[in-house]
Amino acid sequence: MKNLKDLTYGIVGLGIMGGSFAKAIRQNILSQSGSKGKILVCNRSTACLSMAVNEGIADEAFTQDKTSELLKKSDIVFVCLYPHATLEFLKNYKNDFKSGAIVTDISGVKGIFEKSLPELLRPDVDFIIGHPMAGGEKEGYAASNAKFFVNHNYIFCRQTFNSEENYNLMKTLVTELGFTRITETTCDIHDNKIGFTSQLCHVIASALVQSARDPEITAFGGGSFEDLTRIAMINAPLWTELFISNKEKLCAHIDSFQKKMEEFRTAIMEEDSQKLKEMLEETREKRLMMGSVCTVAK
Amino acid sequence: MKNLKDLTYGIVGLGIMGGSFAKAIRQNILSQSGSKGKILVCNRSTACLSMAVNEGIADEAFTQDKTSELLKKSDIVFVCLYPHATLEFLKNYKNDFKSGAIVTDISGVKGIFEKSLPELLRPDVDFIIGHPMAGGEKEGYAASNAKFFVNHNYIFCRQTFNSEENYNLMKTLVTELGFTRITETTCDIHDNKIGFTSQLCHVIASALVQSARDPEITAFGGGSFEDLTRIAMINAPLWTELFISNKEKLCAHIDSFQKKMEEFRTAIMEEDSQKLKEMLEETREKRLMMGSVCTVAK
Repeated sequence: MKNLKDLTYGIVGLGIMGGSFAKAIRQNILSQSGSKGKILVCNRSTACLSMAVNEGIADEAFTQDKTSELLKKSDIVFVCLYPHATLEFLKNYKNDFKSGAIVTDISGVKGIFEKSLPELLRPDVDFIIGHPMAGGEKEGYAASNAKFFVNHNYIFCRQTFNSEENYNLMKTLVTELGFTRITETTCDIHDNKIGFTSQLCHVIASALVQSARDPEITAFGGGSFEDLTRIAMINAPLWTELFISNKEKLCAHIDSFQKKMEEFRTAIMEEDSQKLKEMLEETREKRLMMGSVCTVAK
Repeated sequence: MKNLKDLTYGIVGLGIMGGSFAKAIRQNILSQSGSKGKILVCNRSTACLSMAVNEGIADEAFTQDKTSELLKKSDIVFVCLYPHATLEFLKNYKNDFKSGAIVTDISGVKGIFEKSLPELLRPDVDFIIGHPMAGGEKEGYAASNAKFFVNHNYIFCRQTFNSEENYNLMKTLVTELGFTRITETTCDIHDNKIGFTSQLCHVIASALVQSARDPEITAFGGGSFEDLTRIAMINAPLWTELFISNKEKLCAHIDSFQKKMEEFRTAIMEEDSQKLKEMLEETREKRLMMGSVCTVAK
């Protein structure tokens, strides 16, 4: 079995996610004694490349036109780009991956990959579809950090063609990087659940901010409004892509949610306090039963 | 002018709010050297009364049937009951307040008081309508603490009959207890804004939990769902009362919010990425402009 501390890691896209992968790998894997592993990074803009090299995070940096060189040397490639850019990348560089490499992504929608798998696959390269469930309103390499993934969830959409050895290696790797709860599912189930826990929540937070009539509203806040709208400080191009790529599932969740809103509205307008009390008690029970999602660093 | 450290404070209702007022007054006001002030507490159930006395928070505790005795001795009375219970209390004990006393409430809806003012007022007692904007999913005296109010907002619905001296005294008092942003407004504006920042947020959080099909959803969480549903661990009887007491304003906010949800839904289904991107950019700008509500202890 491959030894994580001796592998060469290629990070494509050095934003908050790619940067955090590089930093966590450096700190948790390559700091082990006798490590022969390396971190190679590439990115469209070059400022973060020099930063990563100067900070001792990356061993070597590649400008976008030298991407193939990075790929030829990398045992495990993290493609940390937006969803459609990831898809294009996998198609365009299909023939440049090192034979035997593991390639993985971080995209928040998975259906687009499943549909294109025949075009993406190479028999000697293992594409392991993954989703590290960490994020926030911060962006860019400067906001990345080695502890970013601690106590977060990781989802793998394991495919029948994935080798068991590679899949287990990836599970070990992400565990070493701090992820604590690893879930294996299909692309379809992933998109359905993420459409609910992540995308629907972002639509709600955005609609709530949009419906505020008064920017001075925060003088009247006790914490609820801030809780519900932290995620409204949103990366517009990324979330536009995520919402539209998963539109059928997301809109079905929007519809269920709005139906529940209407039920509450009706009970309130009709002053049906018995019904409302039951609904709220049920809500509390249901939420408590769900338990904690993860420890989110704020 | 009255000296805060020498006054007798009466706390009616010793839950998380009443308990936190008692503890913060003890720690921030009555610990000053030479203080002659006292804290008197009363509550329907008696377990918390002995706790407050044993902990040295209360000087004297009164069972519910001795409420009048507490009121006859108190210079400032905090009525920390549910909204309608507060209204009933003010009516029932109108003749028991000490002459010259300040009486204040903590209710999350204010319209119900404004309507009943003629029945509540006594020329020699000053009723100052207030709303400490602190809360959470915890309940009861055991969850109260002296730092509960630090960095929170306080809203006063100042009335023309309030004496300037008393009003200023209350502002000084709540500032000493840790509140940092004090807003003066009308009962009508209060109910409209709180209907948005607080009640609408609680309806949304509850509808979101209700629309979850799967209690195992938290394996797919990255923080958003947890952020949006923390407040769904709700005190059902209290919030039923708050929602229904403010139903016209709350439902108007629900309608505006639902309309915005529909706008997002339409843009997503029509794959109108230009529109969606603009909406999300506007959202981010608007949210950033609103700034921080307060520092919420979690």
